[in-house]
Amino acid sequence: MRVMGIDCGGEITGYGIVEQREGHKLRHVCSGAIRMSAREPLAERLTKVFRELGEVIAQHQPEVVAIEDVFYSANVKSALKLGQVRGVAMLAASWHGLRVAEYAPLAIKSAVTGYGKAEKHQVASMVALLLELAEAPQPPDVADALAIAICHLHTASTIDRQRAPAGTR
Amino acid sequence: MRVMGIDCGGEITGYGIVEQREGHKLRHVCSGAIRMSAREPLAERLTKVFRELGEVIAQHQPEVVAIEDVFYSANVKSALKLGQVRGVAMLAASWHGLRVAEYAPLAIKSAVTGYGKAEKHQVASMVALLLELAEAPQPPDVADALAIAICHLHTASTIDRQRAPAGTR
Repeated sequence: MRVMGIDCGGEITGYGIVEQREGHKLRHVCSGAIRMSAREPLAERLTKVFRELGEVIAQHQPEVVAIEDVFYSANVKSALKLGQVRGVAMLAASWHGLRVAEYAPLAIKSAVTGYGKAEKHQVASMVALLLELAEAPQPPDVADALAIAICHLHTASTIDRQRAPAGTR
Repeated sequence: MRVMGIDCGGEITGYGIVEQREGHKLRHVCSGAIRMSAREPLAERLTKVFRELGEVIAQHQPEVVAIEDVFYSANVKSALKLGQVRGVAMLAASWHGLRVAEYAPLAIKSAVTGYGKAEKHQVASMVALLLELAEAPQPPDVADALAIAICHLHTASTIDRQRAPAGTR
């Protein structure tokens, strides 16, 4: 399965595609960050996010998109800002025919580090370890996006194991 | 000038197109509401908003899109929900090559009723009066969308008058 994780933000939106074929290790396919300049009009910034995510999807053909489920934001203003980018990211997935899976921040950190309250740098280090990258992905939004993709793969494989009849495990 | 106003909401997104040719009265071109069922996955709801707004733009060819500038929401959760729809609405405009103008709620109510703290039903009644509609547009989201379009037309014509040399007024 090939999964694209997206980490939405008001200034930087990270993305990362991770692949896992049955019985094989995780493989880093691609990752990157879309930077939005506060000087550009909001509509143009959102168009850039939509276009670039669409290009990555078209080029690398993920089968599903995983995104963080947000319940909390520092305030209403930042929630609106984040919501705008999140809406466009979900649309980019759906527009290209992909299903969107949502994961709570705690589930993402747990899936990657085994600890739901892990620090950002611990998540980034574990992502690098799991994907055999020479160093932690930068900026942190990219590491977070890859963590979301890994979370989906771990969750999906757990569900598959639970579904399989006992004799086939 | 032909202006499309969009009133974004977590459940209903209203839109309305109003036209004003130089020296002529305001004319209602079209209006409607996009309803999002809470039972559909969020990504599908957002896709529906993007597709339907795009179809209205393609069919009625507005020159500009006007949208409410939001600063306030009851809480972070509703702000995120509203932001997601707002991001997709702005993208729909920009994706079709249209500029997006943003207006504060107070400016919209002032432009339509002359009073920044007007009630919803007062805005709807004035919209009906200005556009010579038999009754106030329903649901209220449609009246609000038409009010945003009217606000843009009033603001644009004020700016034009201010720019014109004194002798041409």
